Amino acid sequence: MYPKKQLAQLVISACQYYNIDTVVVSPGSRNAPLTIGFANAPEVDVVSIVDERCAAFFALGVAQQTKKPVVLVCTSGSALLNYYPAVAEAFYSKIPLIVISADRPKHLIDVGDGQTIRQENVFKNHILKSSNLTEGEAFITSNSELIAEAFITSITKRGPVHINVPFDEPLYETVEKLNTAYFNNSLSNGVEERIEEDVLSFPAPKKQTDFSKLSNIWNTTKRKLIVVGVHEVSEKLESVLKLLSKDPSVLIMTETTSNVSDERFINSIDKLITKLDDEAFKELQPEVLVTFGGMIISKRIKQFLRKYKPQQHWHVDEFTAMDTYFCLSEFVQEQPEVFLEKLLEEIQPVESSYQAYWLEEKNARSIQHKKFFKVIPYSDLVVCGTVLQFMPNNSCLQVSNSSVIRYVQLFNVNPTISVFCNRGTSGIDGSTSTAIGAAFANKQQTILITGDLSFFYDSNALWNAHIPSTFRIILMNNSGGGIFKIIPGPKSTNALSFFETPHNLTAEHLAKMYGFAYTTASNIKELEEGLADFYEDNNQPKILEVFTPTNTNDTILKEYFKNL
Amino acid sequence: MYPKKQLAQLVISACQYYNIDTVVVSPGSRNAPLTIGFANAPEVDVVSIVDERCAAFFALGVAQQTKKPVVLVCTSGSALLNYYPAVAEAFYSKIPLIVISADRPKHLIDVGDGQTIRQENVFKNHILKSSNLTEGEAFITSNSELIAEAFITSITKRGPVHINVPFDEPLYETVEKLNTAYFNNSLSNGVEERIEEDVLSFPAPKKQTDFSKLSNIWNTTKRKLIVVGVHEVSEKLESVLKLLSKDPSVLIMTETTSNVSDERFINSIDKLITKLDDEAFKELQPEVLVTFGGMIISKRIKQFLRKYKPQQHWHVDEFTAMDTYFCLSEFVQEQPEVFLEKLLEEIQPVESSYQAYWLEEKNARSIQHKKFFKVIPYSDLVVCGTVLQFMPNNSCLQVSNSSVIRYVQLFNVNPTISVFCNRGTSGIDGSTSTAIGAAFANKQQTILITGDLSFFYDSNALWNAHIPSTFRIILMNNSGGGIFKIIPGPKSTNALSFFETPHNLTAEHLAKMYGFAYTTASNIKELEEGLADFYEDNNQPKILEVFTPTNTNDTILKEYFKNL
Repeated sequence: MYPKKQLAQLVISACQYYNIDTVVVSPGSRNAPLTIGFANAPEVDVVSIVDERCAAFFALGVAQQTKKPVVLVCTSGSALLNYYPAVAEAFYSKIPLIVISADRPKHLIDVGDGQTIRQENVFKNHILKSSNLTEGEAFITSNSELIAEAFITSITKRGPVHINVPFDEPLYETVEKLNTAYFNNSLSNGVEERIEEDVLSFPAPKKQTDFSKLSNIWNTTKRKLIVVGVHEVSEKLESVLKLLSKDPSVLIMTETTSNVSDERFINSIDKLITKLDDEAFKELQPEVLVTFGGMIISKRIKQFLRKYKPQQHWHVDEFTAMDTYFCLSEFVQEQPEVFLEKLLEEIQPVESSYQAYWLEEKNARSIQHKKFFKVIPYSDLVVCGTVLQFMPNNSCLQVSNSSVIRYVQLFNVNPTISVFCNRGTSGIDGSTSTAIGAAFANKQQTILITGDLSFFYDSNALWNAHIPSTFRIILMNNSGGGIFKIIPGPKSTNALSFFETPHNLTAEHLAKMYGFAYTTASNIKELEEGLADFYEDNNQPKILEVFTPTNTNDTILKEYFKNL
Repeated sequence: MYPKKQLAQLVISACQYYNIDTVVVSPGSRNAPLTIGFANAPEVDVVSIVDERCAAFFALGVAQQTKKPVVLVCTSGSALLNYYPAVAEAFYSKIPLIVISADRPKHLIDVGDGQTIRQENVFKNHILKSSNLTEGEAFITSNSELIAEAFITSITKRGPVHINVPFDEPLYETVEKLNTAYFNNSLSNGVEERIEEDVLSFPAPKKQTDFSKLSNIWNTTKRKLIVVGVHEVSEKLESVLKLLSKDPSVLIMTETTSNVSDERFINSIDKLITKLDDEAFKELQPEVLVTFGGMIISKRIKQFLRKYKPQQHWHVDEFTAMDTYFCLSEFVQEQPEVFLEKLLEEIQPVESSYQAYWLEEKNARSIQHKKFFKVIPYSDLVVCGTVLQFMPNNSCLQVSNSSVIRYVQLFNVNPTISVFCNRGTSGIDGSTSTAIGAAFANKQQTILITGDLSFFYDSNALWNAHIPSTFRIILMNNSGGGIFKIIPGPKSTNALSFFETPHNLTAEHLAKMYGFAYTTASNIKELEEGLADFYEDNNQPKILEVFTPTNTNDTILKEYFKNL
């Protein structure tokens, strides 16, 4: 059973052509032609999620794992607007999403028809491509090309695209055959290649890298700092970074979300650079700074590098020049692994005490960390460290914003674990849905560590028939937004309650409602007991809610930094 | 304690100047200057709501009742995007909302800073005005004018506006005084009047009405149909419509959301025009159609008037010409009450059987309705009718989309009750939050009748410390989106489950979690018992969950229409 609507047939053909394997549909009537089509497409997993905000973050979680575009399908009206938080996250995190919205034909917009808004280009500020289709035989070729352009853009440039598909009534007529020829033929005779070329050369043709210039600089400087942002797991990247770290003039800083590890990497930036004085910062100030990957979580490193600017800043990215430190000297338009490999061929180790000095400092601080961790009172900090210790090998760790991801940065995460966090926009709006999408896609043990505000914000994430029983949530509940006690500021005002939003909520009722096993812990013994069998499979996803002391978490964290 | 930031002082001064009385703040750090300021402003009610989607719909509910703009304040990043569903609803429902987003200064956008997106003009498709401010002494006057323009636009044109306010760090510095002079002085010397004039003449100067032409047409036609869309309670409108209905050539059609009533009005359009044949439709076809108010819920009336077009269609609205039936001949740019009053002075009754004929038909169908209602099996239809019978006088009824509002249209709602439904975009995304905002604002008994998908979609609405104990929810739970069985189409496919989204959820756990009294009913006896003391105050808001039979609701409704 396939939709009679030609536009629906084109869209479904495109999904087949580009090997889409997951489609997330939210219920509606205007999108019936697409719903019917996908429900009958054996090659795709179709997941139905009512709340479009959750649907979009779920799709984001799937695409984050599979690195393939996930298709979102919604009906007309405000449904589409609920996708926007996840679309913006996908835009900044470079995750491929193909948003397909059903719409009314143009003559029915702004004339008082129900569930009708101005959908065309509605994500303009945060979308790689908006393709607005038009119904009618005359438009088969242009529609096909617009669809192809959206798919190609999402795949090659890794990000969200929006295809707006108007359907006039009747919506429910069906035919027996999917005629893929319409779409496929429109792409023959070099059309696809031409579109690909256009996409890749927009907004400017690829910039060529002058390797001899860069390697000259590299070989004549004694302090080179590489800072790695959010990055997917990549053995190739890890091995090339390990090779680079053999050069004593090279210091490599990573975050847990960089997903690379080595004892010669500074894997906990804040632990190293907190409490440094002006003299020490000058020691740390690099001559050459190389950056790549997504967002950097550490605010301190940004403040440091903006103040103690390197002479050279090279940002390496296939598409975007990112001038985070206001001193970008070179946009290297390459894949980081590819660039670093080529660079390695050109350069030689430079004698320097740069790396050794800071690795020594790192080790000293690690000793302090361990000492303090042994005597630390029960708090968010100790809960986070304990939870990370108990995490099973080869699992997928999803972390919510805002305070939890900052706590996680302070620990050595088991290197077999991959770590993810929505740092594109750093929102608290879809962490749980993203984690569930990831769990659905990767079939691994997937664990979300979340704060309470993030968790309750995205409570509808649990309204999902596709949550695998291997999925786990560790909810650190400090009865409010703990971050607002950690950052300086809110406590100095008389309006603290408007920042931290105190509450008495727990996950107990939601767990019952949505079929999660549920246990709690309120001290370290209960936490360790709770974690002991937490990863055993009992055919149900599980929540472990850990209550921490609202009023001491922040002072303990401050004490920790003081003791480093 | 006031924020030191001048932009925050300007914004807070503007709120004072324009007598804003409700500010809804969502927690964040970038918006700290505004949060601190409002928390210390004795003249405003400050409500803190974490989920910005709910916050915005709550604000919408408040403004829907007070008819005054409500201010929304959020932090930077995706927080703002979560407002979008409510912003679009406000745009189409003409409800004043003033969205104030904190932002980073321009040089920190798209350089890798956290929680930073492209906020300027982000609601472009659905906003009356986007004011993008700039930090700096040099911009005091232009910022003040941009702020004033946004406030004036929202107030005079009734709809959403967006003010984007960049704040560089430090964010938490405070001073003891609010200096309103900066803002107020910027508006003196005729500046405010000039802005008002500009706003009112945009995009075109007011169109003058040619009353003599219109009254000539009116006086020489025998079939005039007035169709009233969504409208606030207005005694003036009701009385002028009553006067008009004394003319036998005038037929007045209303919906429950029109909030006017008289026995000479056709108050249940679908009940009248269902099952009419071509000949009857030709009888009903007006020569002159006059429309005003917001969206029309009845799909049948739209289909009818688009097919049986009037010779003249006059749409009366202060701002927008709405060509719903593709035959607009006159855009009357006036307030409906004002226009109708003036018209009354010019016209005289015209002899005609038009009104009498259709009132007779209305009465015949009312008799059929009453007959059928007595024998009707337990179902959504009977539950809706029963609930409406038990509703207390002078209460405020909030209805969710989609099927419930359609059921409500079939009954005579107690005329002392005011009825509201988010028909701007007809979304299911914020009905509960809107209803809670309304309950918060109007201090009346406020009752939400909602379907299950709407209710669970907006479950975060209940996470709100300001829900009055007088608030009531009647949840009609048919275990899925009943609308998809009612509309023709989904049942004819093999993908029905992707439309109606069957589930086994109940509100029990949410009620416990959020402190609502909770009772259930599964048959008419239990429903009547449940309703008997449902409106008594026991210091807690209440949910009455009514389970209805998933598989017979649609056939009973079809049977009902057959029996009319």
